[in-house]
Amino acid sequence: MDKREDSLPPDDLPLTDDRESKREAAAREAENELDEDDRLKPEFVRDVLELAEAGEGEAARERIGRLHPADIADLFELARTDERPMLAAVLGDMLSADVLAEMNDYVREELIDLLNPAQVAELAAELDTDDAVAIIEDMEADEQQAVLDAMEPEDRAAIEDALSFPEESAGRLMQRDLVAVPEHVTVGDVIDRLREDTELTSDFWEIYVVDPMHRPVGTCQLSWILRTPRDIAISDVMKREQTLIPVDMDQEEVALRFQKYALISAAVIDRAGRLVGMITVDDVVHIIQEEAGEDILRLSGAGDGDINEPIRETYSARVRWLIANLGTALVASSIVGFFGGAIEQMVALAALMPIVAGVGGNAGTQTLAVTVRALAMNQLTDSNSWRAIWREMKIAILNGTTIALIAGAATALWFANPQLGAVIAAAMVVNIFVAGVAGVAIPLLLDRLDQDPAVASSIFVTMTTDSMGFLAFLGLAVASGLTSMG
Amino acid sequence: MDKREDSLPPDDLPLTDDRESKREAAAREAENELDEDDRLKPEFVRDVLELAEAGEGEAARERIGRLHPADIADLFELARTDERPMLAAVLGDMLSADVLAEMNDYVREELIDLLNPAQVAELAAELDTDDAVAIIEDMEADEQQAVLDAMEPEDRAAIEDALSFPEESAGRLMQRDLVAVPEHVTVGDVIDRLREDTELTSDFWEIYVVDPMHRPVGTCQLSWILRTPRDIAISDVMKREQTLIPVDMDQEEVALRFQKYALISAAVIDRAGRLVGMITVDDVVHIIQEEAGEDILRLSGAGDGDINEPIRETYSARVRWLIANLGTALVASSIVGFFGGAIEQMVALAALMPIVAGVGGNAGTQTLAVTVRALAMNQLTDSNSWRAIWREMKIAILNGTTIALIAGAATALWFANPQLGAVIAAAMVVNIFVAGVAGVAIPLLLDRLDQDPAVASSIFVTMTTDSMGFLAFLGLAVASGLTSMG
Repeated sequence: MDKREDSLPPDDLPLTDDRESKREAAAREAENELDEDDRLKPEFVRDVLELAEAGEGEAARERIGRLHPADIADLFELARTDERPMLAAVLGDMLSADVLAEMNDYVREELIDLLNPAQVAELAAELDTDDAVAIIEDMEADEQQAVLDAMEPEDRAAIEDALSFPEESAGRLMQRDLVAVPEHVTVGDVIDRLREDTELTSDFWEIYVVDPMHRPVGTCQLSWILRTPRDIAISDVMKREQTLIPVDMDQEEVALRFQKYALISAAVIDRAGRLVGMITVDDVVHIIQEEAGEDILRLSGAGDGDINEPIRETYSARVRWLIANLGTALVASSIVGFFGGAIEQMVALAALMPIVAGVGGNAGTQTLAVTVRALAMNQLTDSNSWRAIWREMKIAILNGTTIALIAGAATALWFANPQLGAVIAAAMVVNIFVAGVAGVAIPLLLDRLDQDPAVASSIFVTMTTDSMGFLAFLGLAVASGLTSMG
Repeated sequence: MDKREDSLPPDDLPLTDDRESKREAAAREAENELDEDDRLKPEFVRDVLELAEAGEGEAARERIGRLHPADIADLFELARTDERPMLAAVLGDMLSADVLAEMNDYVREELIDLLNPAQVAELAAELDTDDAVAIIEDMEADEQQAVLDAMEPEDRAAIEDALSFPEESAGRLMQRDLVAVPEHVTVGDVIDRLREDTELTSDFWEIYVVDPMHRPVGTCQLSWILRTPRDIAISDVMKREQTLIPVDMDQEEVALRFQKYALISAAVIDRAGRLVGMITVDDVVHIIQEEAGEDILRLSGAGDGDINEPIRETYSARVRWLIANLGTALVASSIVGFFGGAIEQMVALAALMPIVAGVGGNAGTQTLAVTVRALAMNQLTDSNSWRAIWREMKIAILNGTTIALIAGAATALWFANPQLGAVIAAAMVVNIFVAGVAGVAIPLLLDRLDQDPAVASSIFVTMTTDSMGFLAFLGLAVASGLTSMG
């Protein structure tokens, strides 16, 4: 059952080797379309688009034919917006439901807009409920209704049911096709029924054992069923400790739960505890990726940050953030304005002050990034938040002292002014310490207030480090008698 | 086989309901240890630690007893460093190999240091190869050798074999326990053999069909086997198109491949194409999470950014970055210094210049975040990088114009100086445009040079936007005759 089968009857060899080499040749050719990072090669993309453009649809289709649906979806994403309708026309039914399910949301929306409701309904019917919902949920209300009207009653009911749950909840993510058996059956019963029921989904990895109220009482991996004699009761094979997902749970929580408990699939239950669906890990993997990656976009105010997003939406998301940033920059600016007289007397302060603010801002961003990640990964709770703040204070003191020594010595030597060096060193210590505390305390506070710590933190932290940098540096310069308020 | 089993013989009901309510009560109690986000409640953590501290080991063990290994691992992470050895002593063998496998690397290292090599060897022997390797690979060379010496020859060989592959490669990630069958067997043969072989792993979701050279020719989901009559040949059930993972592939690529093709498990092959191991999605999920999340830490220079990292290591990672930042800040500072005379004549420039630099820096960070994410997700290739640059230019012009109008009008009114308003507006347009181009071009260039675009980009982008902000603003002020070089 493992490596012991290396030696087979020799009469098998020629046949196998022959087929093997053909398969390998095909694999080599297929590999030519992808680079070492599994991305479509630019030459391939260009060739296919040129063939399609030149009206050589058959040749283009042949080249695309070997691709995985995920790669065909990539091909659309890599084509220019104005090339996509043409590519769709050339592909015809090779632009399958599976390809659409793999496609970037924005690119898919563009293509869906080209289709009539009956075509969309037909594509959606081919997909699992969760993938069909992903395609339909982003449509305008009236288009969505037209598509639903064009669907078979059964598919339509499943999708309407899914759409009744909040966006990004387990109810939208789950599939209704699953295998549930009562406790009293044996392993043999389960296998027989699986063989008989031809309508069943084949994409499942575990089956659920339910009580008479249809509440899950245990989960059973398929490998356990395969390895157990037929006459054993399923209730003796199943695992009773199972992770159940409430149907209204947010998808981010679902993803964290899958990750924490290394789940392959999980039962979804309604409020009465009844089994209503199943979520499988392949539907969760892209959520894990998205959720982990979106903090970086939120911290910078880049909105969805998708390179396929329409420019108008990108502009609107980003400019709002820049305007907010303009507002907070005014605070720092007015502090500088307040010390105008002091700067007039000693213009070197104007040259040095951005250094204090900049390095402080960077130290704050470091702490912020670590805190936002730890919060997103559920590593930081009320049990250890004071410890985390204390930890960042110690690091800030170490960093602040180091940077202060370097910046202070360099300034003292460059301007031949030890007092100026002392002032910038002291300001650095103060600002890096404030940056460390703000970088951990602001996201923790926002989290406690049930706000997303990634969204608003950076604007507050930058405002703090800019203002404090200018205030500490210019204030200390005046206080130490290096300059006066004018 | 699905929801039709709701109605069972009524004589089952009392028994089931009785057990059900006990089970539910236990579940409710267990839920008391976790908050709604699946994190251990602070009260629970404190209670357990106090019990352990007070020498009431039995009571502490009883409270911990119901926890999942992942939650016991969390308990250690939430305890203070000085409490962890005590907690380990109280837990005894409840600190199992599974708990260690779930634990944060830094916390685990602390605990492993408390154990002798024989104890580590015993724990490692209980784990799958990949988890055992994760525990052993971070040890010092001599400690690692001592642990290996204490292991059974078979386990030791498997681990030494895994350690022979580069860190973070598929070879370290894979498990050697898998099910491979020759092509000629039937579904019935497979089931019989699975039932007979008691040594086999039970954590598998697919089996591999291999040719006489032990090269994989197909993959077969367990559900397909369960749903197929016994006399059908396995080669008629398996899927020939399969995603194979070369043993030396980097784990980040492995993760992207699992995600792209929605894999549950994948065969790992050596250079000769022979099946040597299997990677399952549960081992990949945390890599996807880590890789997606680490860009935010790299962009800010926060190193590994783990809140459990020893302070010395955190300090060393972050301070290097701050020193580099100090160096680049000098560039911007010297530009301001060059315009010292101009600032002396018109000190309002000193107050306004941080706004130009700051908002430009923010615009650059937005573009940078989007580009780094798109590169990490393989969305940005040579096929569309010029288009991405062009897209960012258009967005920068829209953003720049909007911000320039607001900042220009506000400045003109506030300082009653329309010319100053025009200068800051023009400087904003220039700097936000430069920020947009730098934010997309710098990471693309670093990626082309096979450098990690997340690591060095932000320092270059910030230097560019700071310097360009000061240069454009002060330079335009002088050029427009608003002030002179002194």
